[in-house]
Amino acid sequence: MVFNDNIRFCFMKKMGVPGREVRVAIIGVGGRGHGQTCTLLGMPDVKVAVVCDKYADRVKRTCDKCEEMQGFRPDGTLDYHEAIARDDIEAVVIMTSWQTHIRIACEAMRAGKYAAMEVGGAASVGECWKMVRTSEETGMPCMILENCCYNDREMAILNMVKKGIFGELVHCEGGYLHDLRSEIGNGDIIRHYRQDNFHRRNAELYPTHELGPIAKCLDLNRGNRMVSLCSMASKAVGLRAWYRENRADTDLPAVQINEGDIVTTMIKCANGETISLKHDCTLPRPYSRGILVQGTKGIWQEDGGHVYFEGISPVHEGEWTHSWEAEADYLNKYMHPLWKEYKAFGLRGGHGGMDYLVLRAFIEAVQERKGTPIDVYDTASWMAITALSESSVAMGGAPVEVPDFTDGRWMNRDDHDDSIYTLEKIPDEAYDD
Amino acid sequence: MVFNDNIRFCFMKKMGVPGREVRVAIIGVGGRGHGQTCTLLGMPDVKVAVVCDKYADRVKRTCDKCEEMQGFRPDGTLDYHEAIARDDIEAVVIMTSWQTHIRIACEAMRAGKYAAMEVGGAASVGECWKMVRTSEETGMPCMILENCCYNDREMAILNMVKKGIFGELVHCEGGYLHDLRSEIGNGDIIRHYRQDNFHRRNAELYPTHELGPIAKCLDLNRGNRMVSLCSMASKAVGLRAWYRENRADTDLPAVQINEGDIVTTMIKCANGETISLKHDCTLPRPYSRGILVQGTKGIWQEDGGHVYFEGISPVHEGEWTHSWEAEADYLNKYMHPLWKEYKAFGLRGGHGGMDYLVLRAFIEAVQERKGTPIDVYDTASWMAITALSESSVAMGGAPVEVPDFTDGRWMNRDDHDDSIYTLEKIPDEAYDD
Repeated sequence: MVFNDNIRFCFMKKMGVPGREVRVAIIGVGGRGHGQTCTLLGMPDVKVAVVCDKYADRVKRTCDKCEEMQGFRPDGTLDYHEAIARDDIEAVVIMTSWQTHIRIACEAMRAGKYAAMEVGGAASVGECWKMVRTSEETGMPCMILENCCYNDREMAILNMVKKGIFGELVHCEGGYLHDLRSEIGNGDIIRHYRQDNFHRRNAELYPTHELGPIAKCLDLNRGNRMVSLCSMASKAVGLRAWYRENRADTDLPAVQINEGDIVTTMIKCANGETISLKHDCTLPRPYSRGILVQGTKGIWQEDGGHVYFEGISPVHEGEWTHSWEAEADYLNKYMHPLWKEYKAFGLRGGHGGMDYLVLRAFIEAVQERKGTPIDVYDTASWMAITALSESSVAMGGAPVEVPDFTDGRWMNRDDHDDSIYTLEKIPDEAYDD
Repeated sequence: MVFNDNIRFCFMKKMGVPGREVRVAIIGVGGRGHGQTCTLLGMPDVKVAVVCDKYADRVKRTCDKCEEMQGFRPDGTLDYHEAIARDDIEAVVIMTSWQTHIRIACEAMRAGKYAAMEVGGAASVGECWKMVRTSEETGMPCMILENCCYNDREMAILNMVKKGIFGELVHCEGGYLHDLRSEIGNGDIIRHYRQDNFHRRNAELYPTHELGPIAKCLDLNRGNRMVSLCSMASKAVGLRAWYRENRADTDLPAVQINEGDIVTTMIKCANGETISLKHDCTLPRPYSRGILVQGTKGIWQEDGGHVYFEGISPVHEGEWTHSWEAEADYLNKYMHPLWKEYKAFGLRGGHGGMDYLVLRAFIEAVQERKGTPIDVYDTASWMAITALSESSVAMGGAPVEVPDFTDGRWMNRDDHDDSIYTLEKIPDEAYDD
């Protein structure tokens, strides 16, 4: 371990030192899938054995790239069952549409493979339970590749939380605040699943970019958990206005659009903290995840880029005696040890470097045959927020239970216990498929 | 009228030109009541005829100040019934504890007096209905003195909304984000009602500072209205930590504290907009009202002090193509006409000048015997949020109905109709007490 146990939630070897070779199947190579495959191809101990997509042109593009970067051409297939069934792979990396992540991950686990999924919400609470039971029964880990858990800013804040700088945490907020009208609105052209989801569903469609980092701050599933939520959706007018201006020659201006422009969700935790989430993708605005972390000793707010800590931040005379401080010095002072090492090693991959880290965390878990740092309980509970919010919105904001996917394990699990899926605990037969 | 009808919601004569003399009763002269009385005393056409409080020392202090500033000493009394019953006053300005505002206002209306109340939430939905019925039956206006409706920033934003700069509004947010631990925690010493409310209730205790300006942007009660809300409260740990550090020699560290540190409320409007409110008064933090206004063409966010407007704000190449702009130039360009005139006249009174404006709007309504710009329906619906949020919190976030206090009038009232309480519509007998 290269960093303080108190702040560990990923485990990595010395940055850049290759481990044993891991052969993976890649399923889903649209824009995101292709990009993440390229990041994996930059790791000398990872080999892509097979590439799968429902579109042959995508398969070819990614196979070409693999051949160029790893010196041999992976097999290509349009059949994900075939990709999963191969006995020369240890792990399956799933980057398909949101609504197919879990079914493919379950099939991968049943085949004795480590499963990793790109981010996205669940279509139903039932499929979250299926994922948990499949992982428990097979002993195979399943990890959502929540890259934002590995972002420099979020990891510095986590470091500060674990060091007690915020005191006792009381409230967190975050959002996926991203003008995606063009990507959604052209989804029929660019073969993107977002469009279906925005036309059909009305939910917190994409909760994990903010909820993942918040979950780590609040020790969710490790001494704390989410117990209930309420969601409310605004009217849906942003995407239709965009269609009228940009797709007037199609049927899209008249299509049924269910997803409210702004979906707000309030979550209550077992230890009394509240979490507010906001989904905001069909109105013009700058990007933000709008994260806020607040405790008895201080507060950090991403929008504004500022902090206040009692007894540390300046207090002056007058009616408004407390002033924000810029976050920069704090983020630098409390830079996560992993990020110090990563900066020395050299950032790589997309989204400011965090994509590489989350993929590396998964690959190293596979190499060590250990549990993934974001485990199946995290994955299920974070993804379930989408389906739960959909229920609550449909019932006018009525509170709905967040299931305890751990079946009570959350009460006693050590916050830093990565051993739940260590080799010792996984029955041998799990690997025999 | 000195400003554009399209943005009018207060009516004022030429700034600084006195009208006919209005004699008022002042009830409640703690810190806020005394300060607001001083602002009224700066108006040459206002005379304070009687001052009332439950504490004699407060009555004396304010009577002394009145004598000094208006040249004669008002009567002082500990009995508010006596103050209201006087036949030499036209209006009663109520600045008592939150939970006594409405009962005193109703007695004032029954006595044929204009009623104005300092801000605060309602104790029950029933008392909001009582206020509405009393106003309707007596024909007397009742106005919450929501000073933030008259703040320069909020009025500039309202101006922009009415000019269509935001497009169709979709979502608004705001909060009362104010570290009041010292004022609450010393409430037993300084005779402040906040302490009782924070110990006993668990609600959005103070919604109107942000909801008032938002209501004006969303045309609430004038073509739109709030239809339901859900509220959720965090644990209550901030005030207890403060008691342990600052009042360890008392029983307060062991007192029951019901008010959650963070209370979040989601409101749905008839026209599909959502409003998020946050109450945050018992944790360390800088002050903010955290207002956000968002529509199909742009967004303003108080925290960060920035705006983005499609087709106006700069767009650049790359993954995150939209950038915030500082709000300052927009706030200046769209400064409300009332504020232009006010700046030329010279700001006065507390809270950056807005206190004077809201008091002036009330006084001029009395002088003209017209309806108040914030009317009894606004007052009832804004104050009711406190009682409604209390119900929802108690029921785990369950949605509760926001009553239509207008009995359907909201559908057809003109946004700019101040005439509902004009002299013509108020029966003569309303003035005979």
